[in-house]
Amino acid sequence: MPKPAVILLSGGLDSATTAAIARVQGFDLYALSFDYGQRHRFELDSARRVAASMGVQRHATVVIDLAQFGASALTADIAVPKGRSAAEMDAGIPITYVPARNTVFLSLALAYAEVLGAADIFLGVNAVDYSGYPDCRPEYIAAFEKLANLATKAGVEGTLKFRIHTPLIKMSKAEIIRCGTQLNVDYSLTHSCYDPDPAGLACGRCDACVLRRKGFQEAGLEDPLDYAS
Amino acid sequence: MPKPAVILLSGGLDSATTAAIARVQGFDLYALSFDYGQRHRFELDSARRVAASMGVQRHATVVIDLAQFGASALTADIAVPKGRSAAEMDAGIPITYVPARNTVFLSLALAYAEVLGAADIFLGVNAVDYSGYPDCRPEYIAAFEKLANLATKAGVEGTLKFRIHTPLIKMSKAEIIRCGTQLNVDYSLTHSCYDPDPAGLACGRCDACVLRRKGFQEAGLEDPLDYAS
Repeated sequence: MPKPAVILLSGGLDSATTAAIARVQGFDLYALSFDYGQRHRFELDSARRVAASMGVQRHATVVIDLAQFGASALTADIAVPKGRSAAEMDAGIPITYVPARNTVFLSLALAYAEVLGAADIFLGVNAVDYSGYPDCRPEYIAAFEKLANLATKAGVEGTLKFRIHTPLIKMSKAEIIRCGTQLNVDYSLTHSCYDPDPAGLACGRCDACVLRRKGFQEAGLEDPLDYAS
Repeated sequence: MPKPAVILLSGGLDSATTAAIARVQGFDLYALSFDYGQRHRFELDSARRVAASMGVQRHATVVIDLAQFGASALTADIAVPKGRSAAEMDAGIPITYVPARNTVFLSLALAYAEVLGAADIFLGVNAVDYSGYPDCRPEYIAAFEKLANLATKAGVEGTLKFRIHTPLIKMSKAEIIRCGTQLNVDYSLTHSCYDPDPAGLACGRCDACVLRRKGFQEAGLEDPLDYAS
């Protein structure tokens, strides 16, 4: 019988690929998205389309207002950096960092997983072609996994051994795209841009767009998205 | 200059005492409460009253629907156990357990703390006269503290060394009440019952009421609350 797994689904390229990997591993998918006060809502539309294309059992969206804390270009009125080079991206944690975001998201995924009786949580973080976020690193994931088994009734009683799966963590963006393409991920449904125009068109110049375009280029595949520049 | 601290404030006896301890230690208090789909809202009123009585800098309430995941007597339509003995309470994790609740709450406290530039987070958990919840134990708190410093920009860059303070963790309920009384906590503002009547009157028989009444009795102090039975 297929086992249930919770998959964090942002609507981006990485989480769509992660969902496809979980599915091919035989899990029944319970997708979880967050309406967290992000400046643009296109990613929630993408998450819905990706969830439908993956045949998930259920897609839940948790509303949580991280913007009330402020202090990130993704939730507050701060300009998203554009046209940064790889060296600039490597130089530190960018302004698009949202304080404790993955910890908040994983905590809620853990709550949902325990209720479902799912030991497995999938998260599309990546420590290679990433934006320098601290909560995308393997040591962070390992610490959360340990916490999950101390934090919960199921973990403490031993009925579930929680595992945080991060299948993309050591892959380059090009490798992720090749993997997803083999698994028939429809990347035209995904959305990566930090700062789309009012119609949802990707800017082409923020860190997320730059990494995505470079990934498709290196994979020798065509990005199905249009870009503003 | 006083340092800022985030204090999780439920409106109960323990978090009110914890706030008083943080205040006497010289912290500026930033209180955080959660409207998480709990069955009764009296505790949010209590949290507001306690926050005001403590002279907090700010009191934020985060709305987050944990009830959409179901599976707890505190959020779903399941009967709260009544009249349990100490032995019955010691026997296991009760139905009032809310999956991953403290992990969700601490994650959001961490996000708020990082935005504020606060290294200190206060949580009124207790591992002596407690209800058997896994996320109230010292090993859980230590794991979260470690995670907090891996999860955040401030932790990784070393601008803040996050600390989770749990001053009540080894105290009996009677010791907590004596401590809070010395610090002039007004326990008439607090609310502990899991299952109050429609007017907010405490039931007197759920685990929280039983532990509270026993605590006041052992402390030789009078509980200012009325009870239905």
